[in-house]
Amino acid sequence: MSTPQEYIDQNKDKFLNELFELLRIPSISTDSSKKDAIRNAADFLVGQLEALDFERVELFETPGNPIVYGEHCPYDDQPTVLVYGHYDVQPSDPDDLWDTPPFEPTIKDGSIYARGASDDKGQSFTHVKAIESFVKSGTPIPVNVKFILEGEEEIGSPNLVPFLENHKDLLACDMVLISDTAMFGKDQPSITYGLRGLAYMEMEVVGPNRDLHSGVYGGAVENPLNVLCEMIAKMKDEDGVIQIPGFYDRVIPLTQADREASAALPFDEEAYKNSLDIKEVHGEKGYTTLERASARPTLDVNGIWGGYQKEGAKTVLPSKAGAKVSMRLVPDQDPKEIARLFQEYVESIAPDTVKVTANEHHGGFPSVTDLDFYGLKAGAKAFEEIYDKEVLFSREGGSIPIVADFKRVLGVESILMGFGLTSDAIHSPNEKFSVKDFHRGIKTSARFFELLPDFKE
Amino acid sequence: MSTPQEYIDQNKDKFLNELFELLRIPSISTDSSKKDAIRNAADFLVGQLEALDFERVELFETPGNPIVYGEHCPYDDQPTVLVYGHYDVQPSDPDDLWDTPPFEPTIKDGSIYARGASDDKGQSFTHVKAIESFVKSGTPIPVNVKFILEGEEEIGSPNLVPFLENHKDLLACDMVLISDTAMFGKDQPSITYGLRGLAYMEMEVVGPNRDLHSGVYGGAVENPLNVLCEMIAKMKDEDGVIQIPGFYDRVIPLTQADREASAALPFDEEAYKNSLDIKEVHGEKGYTTLERASARPTLDVNGIWGGYQKEGAKTVLPSKAGAKVSMRLVPDQDPKEIARLFQEYVESIAPDTVKVTANEHHGGFPSVTDLDFYGLKAGAKAFEEIYDKEVLFSREGGSIPIVADFKRVLGVESILMGFGLTSDAIHSPNEKFSVKDFHRGIKTSARFFELLPDFKE
Repeated sequence: MSTPQEYIDQNKDKFLNELFELLRIPSISTDSSKKDAIRNAADFLVGQLEALDFERVELFETPGNPIVYGEHCPYDDQPTVLVYGHYDVQPSDPDDLWDTPPFEPTIKDGSIYARGASDDKGQSFTHVKAIESFVKSGTPIPVNVKFILEGEEEIGSPNLVPFLENHKDLLACDMVLISDTAMFGKDQPSITYGLRGLAYMEMEVVGPNRDLHSGVYGGAVENPLNVLCEMIAKMKDEDGVIQIPGFYDRVIPLTQADREASAALPFDEEAYKNSLDIKEVHGEKGYTTLERASARPTLDVNGIWGGYQKEGAKTVLPSKAGAKVSMRLVPDQDPKEIARLFQEYVESIAPDTVKVTANEHHGGFPSVTDLDFYGLKAGAKAFEEIYDKEVLFSREGGSIPIVADFKRVLGVESILMGFGLTSDAIHSPNEKFSVKDFHRGIKTSARFFELLPDFKE
Repeated sequence: MSTPQEYIDQNKDKFLNELFELLRIPSISTDSSKKDAIRNAADFLVGQLEALDFERVELFETPGNPIVYGEHCPYDDQPTVLVYGHYDVQPSDPDDLWDTPPFEPTIKDGSIYARGASDDKGQSFTHVKAIESFVKSGTPIPVNVKFILEGEEEIGSPNLVPFLENHKDLLACDMVLISDTAMFGKDQPSITYGLRGLAYMEMEVVGPNRDLHSGVYGGAVENPLNVLCEMIAKMKDEDGVIQIPGFYDRVIPLTQADREASAALPFDEEAYKNSLDIKEVHGEKGYTTLERASARPTLDVNGIWGGYQKEGAKTVLPSKAGAKVSMRLVPDQDPKEIARLFQEYVESIAPDTVKVTANEHHGGFPSVTDLDFYGLKAGAKAFEEIYDKEVLFSREGGSIPIVADFKRVLGVESILMGFGLTSDAIHSPNEKFSVKDFHRGIKTSARFFELLPDFKE
């Protein structure tokens, strides 16, 4: 018999092949034509958990995509870790910018290239394989473990919170373990203790009841495209300050300690600019790049459309224009309230000459985890042992709204043990995940389960 | 033997069927995949002219789409009329908004529905059939006639001006006859004496070298979509005044006479708003709707794109954004100069954080025709006889840049004898052309050729 760590080293290729099976499934939750793929990904994970001798494995139906659940809880005197992950992925478009097909995982330069490689199939799979290393090496799993793997994270987890609320006993635990974030840098173990929230809106501006000839009507009839641009331009001032009344009312200002911690993180702004090929960074006046990207709220247009977009020139004054606009939020902003303030502002600046609507897509609360939590310390220790380097604690700019929901509904802290890199191009073409970090992730997860009983308070 | 007018009445259905043949050809010049259709439409017209016993019919190749030419010039003592038209059409998209397929002409409620029905296949075909009415009724054509039918009007006629310049003798004439405009209202014969020019630009804003996650980078990296909107918002002020420095320098202010003529035109603003389903008109402060739509310059966004445009939500900070922006011009604005001023302004307001380009698509000069020209008077008389109503003279907001080119290169005035209606939805889904006006157009054209010798000075 081998140890779990030995088993992990001996099964590197097997783990990769299994992950590839999962990555080949185009489980895009935002695309309603991909329901079969969603189902296939969920079934694949049920099969994975069933192979771990769990007492209970179940596929829970929801009004949307199913939730995969599994548990192995033999102890009365050990903590229970609820592992959370998601098997749905972002859309792959623009597909022509991928060097290899998004759903044909390919290893190149030490990384796995595929949609979902890092976010979150690859990262969440580390914990499945870590548990397997105990089971298959004949070692008792040291703590109680539950898995909850959902298929709607990329569309705002609309059915997860109701599921949590209706299954509080089933999901009762001492902490949630999540790998869906990035390390602060290559080979730099990091634990994320803060996440931004999100309010995501879709605007539509409707002018005349049909597309018009811009020669015949231009100058006399309001153009919805011009109006849309003018309204979006009014959302931020020249200093990057968001102009929606009340937007900043609940924002907890950064403390001196926050700012010092952020300033202490290694960050090379020149390298950052070079990697993006931009001449200058840009954001809210009075804050550093790291603060802007993680600890301050934002407003970004995520998509815009209207009129003639193809080759050549069409002299049209279009009937409609639309845009997707999202705002990242920080504690204690409330996504529902921000969505309402956005709608009110849009109404207040919409001219009489057009009809404007702003609807909410999905939202999520921001969160900050207590740095003194024992689970966080166990995670940091495991990370340091495997990576042989001190862990950094940072806030991250992305959103995992369910971290706030776990706290609110189940009353527990989450440990955000990310194995990805910011350069993984998640949500972009050519998403990737380091083969080495996939392997070290499995080892770190296994070590965390081994160490946790010692840290228990 | 019948008269030309009788022949026209006897062949209504034949003319319609022939027009339908032409309308079935999807000769979209802005779409490079439609080269075969362009060729088919040109060949169809060559066949039409060949059936008229012309001395010369020829398909001239150009670096772009071919030009159809024909002439019948037996007289030394009669004026020569050069008929201009275009056989290319606008794109048909958005196709799903058409009630009948754009390239399957359908008669409904007294109108022919098809892309190009009015602009300009249906209108220009009236003159071909008018000439046929002389030839087939055994009546000598009363004046010299030349036809020039091009296939690039909707992309700015890039090869027509070089063709004019290289064929001044071939095209020598006393006037140009064009039917590519709208009547002032239903059953209201109208001759357009002014046209706006055009400068059509395409902007691109490039930020980071790839699409980014709006959570990870949002707030710290400039978003090209936000920048594009902000730049477009800076192009006009709240009074609708265009902010490009120098833009108005060459604009000839409206005279008191211009304003009185415009005010005398029948125009029901409430009906106008109702027909477009808009609550308020909108445009440059200090001008009426008719002035704004015909005699003042404009700036309209014709298309915009970038980021995620599909169903659902994608939290992307896109690498690129683009827009098509066009400006209608009035005498004496110069499209090349306006394009340059636009580019300079765009450069001056582009932030350091992105790369911005603005390229010119095509342009055209504005024009005004001399109201005392004898050809114009003959046209007005023919129009009044057939429609039994006094002709109105108006300026129109659209652009037919080659009117200015005919004046400059061939030294002649153009007679803009439009049979369309502003409600024809040219450039929009469900483009149509009244069957009655198609018929009356042929009769008016034939009558014009009959009357012209009497008006000759």
